[in-house]
Amino acid sequence: MMLLNLDNDSSKPKYQQIIDQIREKIASNSLLPGEKLPSTRQLALTLDVHRSTVSTAYQELWALGYIDFRPGACPRVRKRARMVSASSECRESLIDWSQFASPAGNKILDVYREFSSKVTTKNPDVIDFSSLNIDSRLFPVENLATCLNKVVKDQGNHLLSYGNHKGYLPLRNVIAHRLQHHGISVSAEQILITNGSQQAIDLVLRMIAAPGKSVAFEVPTYDCMLPLLHFHRLKPVEIPMNHEGMDLKQLEKVLRKEPPAVIYTMPTFHNPTGISTSQSHREQLLSLCETYRIPLLEDGFEEEMKYFGRVILPIKSMDKHQLVIYCGTFSKVLFPGIRIGWVAAGNECIERLTAIRRFSEVSSNTLMQAAIHEFCAQHFYDRHIAKMHRIYRKRMQTAIHALRKYIAPHWAEWSEPGGGYLIWLKLKTHRYHPNEMKDIFASFGVLPAPGNFFFLSQPPESYLRLSISSLNEDEITEGISRLSNALSRMFN
Amino acid sequence: MMLLNLDNDSSKPKYQQIIDQIREKIASNSLLPGEKLPSTRQLALTLDVHRSTVSTAYQELWALGYIDFRPGACPRVRKRARMVSASSECRESLIDWSQFASPAGNKILDVYREFSSKVTTKNPDVIDFSSLNIDSRLFPVENLATCLNKVVKDQGNHLLSYGNHKGYLPLRNVIAHRLQHHGISVSAEQILITNGSQQAIDLVLRMIAAPGKSVAFEVPTYDCMLPLLHFHRLKPVEIPMNHEGMDLKQLEKVLRKEPPAVIYTMPTFHNPTGISTSQSHREQLLSLCETYRIPLLEDGFEEEMKYFGRVILPIKSMDKHQLVIYCGTFSKVLFPGIRIGWVAAGNECIERLTAIRRFSEVSSNTLMQAAIHEFCAQHFYDRHIAKMHRIYRKRMQTAIHALRKYIAPHWAEWSEPGGGYLIWLKLKTHRYHPNEMKDIFASFGVLPAPGNFFFLSQPPESYLRLSISSLNEDEITEGISRLSNALSRMFN
Repeated sequence: MMLLNLDNDSSKPKYQQIIDQIREKIASNSLLPGEKLPSTRQLALTLDVHRSTVSTAYQELWALGYIDFRPGACPRVRKRARMVSASSECRESLIDWSQFASPAGNKILDVYREFSSKVTTKNPDVIDFSSLNIDSRLFPVENLATCLNKVVKDQGNHLLSYGNHKGYLPLRNVIAHRLQHHGISVSAEQILITNGSQQAIDLVLRMIAAPGKSVAFEVPTYDCMLPLLHFHRLKPVEIPMNHEGMDLKQLEKVLRKEPPAVIYTMPTFHNPTGISTSQSHREQLLSLCETYRIPLLEDGFEEEMKYFGRVILPIKSMDKHQLVIYCGTFSKVLFPGIRIGWVAAGNECIERLTAIRRFSEVSSNTLMQAAIHEFCAQHFYDRHIAKMHRIYRKRMQTAIHALRKYIAPHWAEWSEPGGGYLIWLKLKTHRYHPNEMKDIFASFGVLPAPGNFFFLSQPPESYLRLSISSLNEDEITEGISRLSNALSRMFN
Repeated sequence: MMLLNLDNDSSKPKYQQIIDQIREKIASNSLLPGEKLPSTRQLALTLDVHRSTVSTAYQELWALGYIDFRPGACPRVRKRARMVSASSECRESLIDWSQFASPAGNKILDVYREFSSKVTTKNPDVIDFSSLNIDSRLFPVENLATCLNKVVKDQGNHLLSYGNHKGYLPLRNVIAHRLQHHGISVSAEQILITNGSQQAIDLVLRMIAAPGKSVAFEVPTYDCMLPLLHFHRLKPVEIPMNHEGMDLKQLEKVLRKEPPAVIYTMPTFHNPTGISTSQSHREQLLSLCETYRIPLLEDGFEEEMKYFGRVILPIKSMDKHQLVIYCGTFSKVLFPGIRIGWVAAGNECIERLTAIRRFSEVSSNTLMQAAIHEFCAQHFYDRHIAKMHRIYRKRMQTAIHALRKYIAPHWAEWSEPGGGYLIWLKLKTHRYHPNEMKDIFASFGVLPAPGNFFFLSQPPESYLRLSISSLNEDEITEGISRLSNALSRMFN
């Protein structure tokens, strides 16, 4: 009979007391390898605790490698050659990892630490305008469960094997067909499915990275683009933006003098400014690329979120000469966690990107791609997009309304986006350092993204990026009212 | 009333005839945007076909963007600004992609094409010993379905958001605990979950890649390692193998003269030779690494498949100074398609790898990681491993038995592996070029992997790698008998 003594007054949970006492008995050899432990029911009766308490303890002891535990049989102490400690202490390494890593490898660690330190709040009382994650309360989880069930049952064995290097063909077909709604004509062979559009960008940069090459992009830009360029040792060439988008005159000067390997742009719902460029701006940009024969990397990360008015087609829709490498994603409208994005480009470009992906990770998760294919085929995706449009149209209207109501014209100006999640505020003060501002906003319980995140060097003006992607109407209104209080403090 | 004429004698399936005729009517404006189409039932009656035929046609027309089609309502011709053609023709590109890509980017395309051309057969009559994919007939698909269901229902909204950059914490805990069974003591913080172990290797190489650096590895080696080294512009340093594993005298010479950035090794069930190194070989290798302070990249891709005799612990289990970067995977024992592998290493090394992963693809698929965590917690993984051991122990015995029976000693020699899936045959002839041999084997309906795949340059001897991973006992016996017939032809 194994004797355990539980302390009812201890702050340590009872299941943990059971774990610790059994581990101690094993360590001291008062329980021997192969020895039987009481059943869950027996031990629960003896100790006068709920069966689930014992069950939790046994599960953890199994996970720690102390016992063998199979449903329907009594657990036994595991027979093992030697017991290692579950210690997580950081032993001294013989390696100097900063010597081991390349200079680029060292640099990206610094940036990662910097990003981790500026990461969004976990405080539920703070209203978070900094995150571009979509509202998980809107996820059509049950529909996905239906689709996952169906594909696992119908074709599980096939889908759980290594998949096609380009991605699951039926999903590539669906993406090709959906791109037609945006005026883009590509076949499934001209699509590579990636782990989100971030991987699409990384693959393009991996393809071109070589000493002396540069990448041109509008400034401000997506904050994760800059570390990637550094990591690939690609020279960043900043093209300023005006209210129409990338300044094309500046761009042409650069193209004439020192043509970059590729131009990166977000023509629709630009991050961070929310600007969508006009049809004629798009035509001029494409025409510059054609003249100078420079590929254009078009990031259509929020293409589906055109819930207001007129639809402007992506630049890729006008691409007659396969200059445009278009990337898209499900992450900003459906489920970010499934990590499914894509690149659409000419056959040769896609084959080259596929080659890199093939040797760097073989293939992506086919089962999840099949579930998303099913999700589209059952029209869940269409219905979800319609719902997202309905909801975010109202949310954006609410945000604009609150800004007009609460933010005084002499504090800040902003332009109203044609869709998406982002509003870009230009503050009419230079008095505050970004860190000072952050503290003031925090004291009012609101967290906008500081504009300087999106520039290579400190910008001349102060900006804030407001993302409404994870907030409902009440939260948006309350958040902008708090922002107003903070600005009121700053301007007085 | 829409008139369609189906041709019963046509080789074109009826659903395709329906699609083509409706597309034509839309193109010629005899069906106008917004116009209603007959219901599935009506059209099936009119055309005297099964409802599923019409339903398939309508689904495809929806996917192509021609109609709006929602369950419960009649489909309508879609109102669209313009209709793009679904043409997949390869238009001329203005870009010379070989100029756009880096030299390394060009090289990996060549290798990809070469790999694609040597890829395994699709002919079901050929017995395929070349693939290292595990037998999908053994996948515990229903258990996975149970786990997926549970995690989607319990925590779907959370799991479908962006995940932890290192991977799902509870799964990292389970992996840490499982590694204890192999004598490895690491905490969850010392584990990074990757998209298969291929990505783990790629991340390590990304971290170190810089001009002038080299990587030492045993030859022959994993065939996908060589293209990756080329791509990272890392100099390959070949260390020959003897029957005990990597030749440590040769290695020491290299370490003394020109130390590599890292040493890559597969001590257990080495690919392609199947050799597992001894305890003392492992100790000596680690001691060399300690002396010269060189990290060791240990690839434990088949660690779980120790179904014969004595368990030799991985080198990582003896690593007191955090020199060893250990990578493992579920792909060679559970489901390759889920793309879940991991790296276990010291905290700093893991943080550095995480930084690269964070900017190259944000995070991996959390839902699938949660499902695999559940799969382990419900003991499905333990039971599956036990089943795999039972089955492959018999399969390997069958293979060894068939080799002894069918392969004459003057044709070839081989050593018997301690587990895993691989047998390495050294042929006692030099008469045939690998391509000639391939044709002879193909004519007998059997496909071994030619040994030269696993060398940087043409080896002095002829080898074959036999993988039993995707074959059952009957297939193994029949395949080795065919191999015998082919060798008989070659030696006569």
